[in-house]
Amino acid sequence: MKGFPIVKSRRVRSSPYTSRIEKQGVTAYTVYNHMLLPAAFGSLEDSCNHLKKNVQVWDVAAEIDGDGNLVNDPVILKLAEDRWWISIADSDVIFFAKGLASGNNFDVEIFEPNVDILAIQGPKSFDLMEKIFGKKIKELKFFGFDYFDFKGVKHLIARSGWSKQGGFEVYVENTKSGLDLYDELFKVGKEFDVKPGCPNLIERIESGLLSYGNDFDNQDNPFECGFEKYVHLDSDVNFLGKEKLIKIKKDGIKKKLMGIQLDTNKINLTKSLDIKDENGNFVGELRSACYSPHFKKVIGIAMINEPYCKASMAGKLEIEGNSFTVKVCDLPFI
Amino acid sequence: MKGFPIVKSRRVRSSPYTSRIEKQGVTAYTVYNHMLLPAAFGSLEDSCNHLKKNVQVWDVAAEIDGDGNLVNDPVILKLAEDRWWISIADSDVIFFAKGLASGNNFDVEIFEPNVDILAIQGPKSFDLMEKIFGKKIKELKFFGFDYFDFKGVKHLIARSGWSKQGGFEVYVENTKSGLDLYDELFKVGKEFDVKPGCPNLIERIESGLLSYGNDFDNQDNPFECGFEKYVHLDSDVNFLGKEKLIKIKKDGIKKKLMGIQLDTNKINLTKSLDIKDENGNFVGELRSACYSPHFKKVIGIAMINEPYCKASMAGKLEIEGNSFTVKVCDLPFI
Repeated sequence: MKGFPIVKSRRVRSSPYTSRIEKQGVTAYTVYNHMLLPAAFGSLEDSCNHLKKNVQVWDVAAEIDGDGNLVNDPVILKLAEDRWWISIADSDVIFFAKGLASGNNFDVEIFEPNVDILAIQGPKSFDLMEKIFGKKIKELKFFGFDYFDFKGVKHLIARSGWSKQGGFEVYVENTKSGLDLYDELFKVGKEFDVKPGCPNLIERIESGLLSYGNDFDNQDNPFECGFEKYVHLDSDVNFLGKEKLIKIKKDGIKKKLMGIQLDTNKINLTKSLDIKDENGNFVGELRSACYSPHFKKVIGIAMINEPYCKASMAGKLEIEGNSFTVKVCDLPFI
Repeated sequence: MKGFPIVKSRRVRSSPYTSRIEKQGVTAYTVYNHMLLPAAFGSLEDSCNHLKKNVQVWDVAAEIDGDGNLVNDPVILKLAEDRWWISIADSDVIFFAKGLASGNNFDVEIFEPNVDILAIQGPKSFDLMEKIFGKKIKELKFFGFDYFDFKGVKHLIARSGWSKQGGFEVYVENTKSGLDLYDELFKVGKEFDVKPGCPNLIERIESGLLSYGNDFDNQDNPFECGFEKYVHLDSDVNFLGKEKLIKIKKDGIKKKLMGIQLDTNKINLTKSLDIKDENGNFVGELRSACYSPHFKKVIGIAMINEPYCKASMAGKLEIEGNSFTVKVCDLPFI
């Protein structure tokens, strides 16, 4: 893979697994929460196909504000009545929590625990994890979690992960045991054709898995992002931004995250691209895109303005001097 | 420069200047506030030497919490009684501000303005900027700022920047004018041997310029980082974390950021390295380091524990199986 090298430093943190991953042929990185996150192991397409059929091990370590806008897209685990883990997306939401706690004089300790997450993803992840942790791990429900023993060390394992292929996330607190587990996954996983992997751009867009920072950010509210089923405005419980969200819902949203399709076989999106109509009016902003070998066209995720945010609407996009027709569709694609 | 390529995306933002910088030979990137920040234009040493003698144009775009720990290291500009710009270091301090505002019910709007900073750094930056903006720009005091005209467009310019070689930062709100200015700086700057540059690891360590995320972070307090002269505990004004800081000062700090010197000609620090004494006791943590052509040895910035945090104390560091003697010294080096 061509491109500009990334300079490592303490600020751009390595993970305990970095040296193993580099031995296993990582070909590109991105930076996520101030940490190196593998972005590719060779071809994205090959890796996507492998993920859909087998099992991969990923080194991965991811709310609204007072205005009703989103601040992150975390997985939240309630460990005890007074202890929660928030596995965050790419923003320092810890500072939002600290600011709120300070402003409200809440009696709470907020800190980053020493946890490095390993994701085991793909249809064969269930058999691989059963071989190591026993039958009980297959009983975990989606987003359920429990503690499982590995050679005398307890690891919190959740049935979760940023792919639609199924799998688990291991919250590793004991780094030494985590590295042992990493090696064991590849040893035991041979029969399941285990490979190193990472969140796959093609698979996640096909599946409509949204990315904080790419598809939505602190400028967007949950209704615009298709999260209305997670927002309970009728609940008796008060929460931050509730009044604003009630107003937003009453007024109606002016833009919405939608899928788009483009009849071409290549795109390299490094920033938002404006979609316009035939008269040059602004239709929306393409925020993520890739070529999908499954659909044999480019698919993407775009914030589309009213009145264009309906399936089968169309617009135009300029890429390197060429004009393409953009077809708006519902999410997810698959 | 070898290394792993960085994958660009909307989440890892490009700047308006990215295309120009890539034409001018950027050789490596880092990610800073979710944005691509040039990390090298060829040799760090050559670039450091050039910065100390001439002028460079940089594409750059940068407090305590309730516990008295640091959350960022920004430059703050008071534009009006009710309008402030915070040019931040590498953490989403906007969420801390939003959390505090929400928790305290402050009537304040907090948002990221569309500003991209260009830094003009080096001893010849004063003459170059005078040629473009006129004599008045030389009258700016350190950290002073004012509006200056460039071809009919006003730009806020501050005498600041993350080098000790002197220079300015242009807060570009009008991107088109900013790109014109970028080109003009290189046209007019020929006689001053202007080059593209970026924050230089060697120059900033020699000068003792600290880096949030590298040298200190939200685990450290201002007294540990040598910022005591900026903390006014005797002031009548109450501020966040004041009580905690009074207690910290009374109890005395247990660790301190110090300089270190190492008799070797190479180091590539990608994470903290533990410094120990002869008996294997923990002395401190080396957080940033580089080979300094000026001192002809490796110099670095380390968080050193009591009782070792005094100039001329010593410890041991293991690098790739070799043991080196570490000498503790005061900051800055120059």
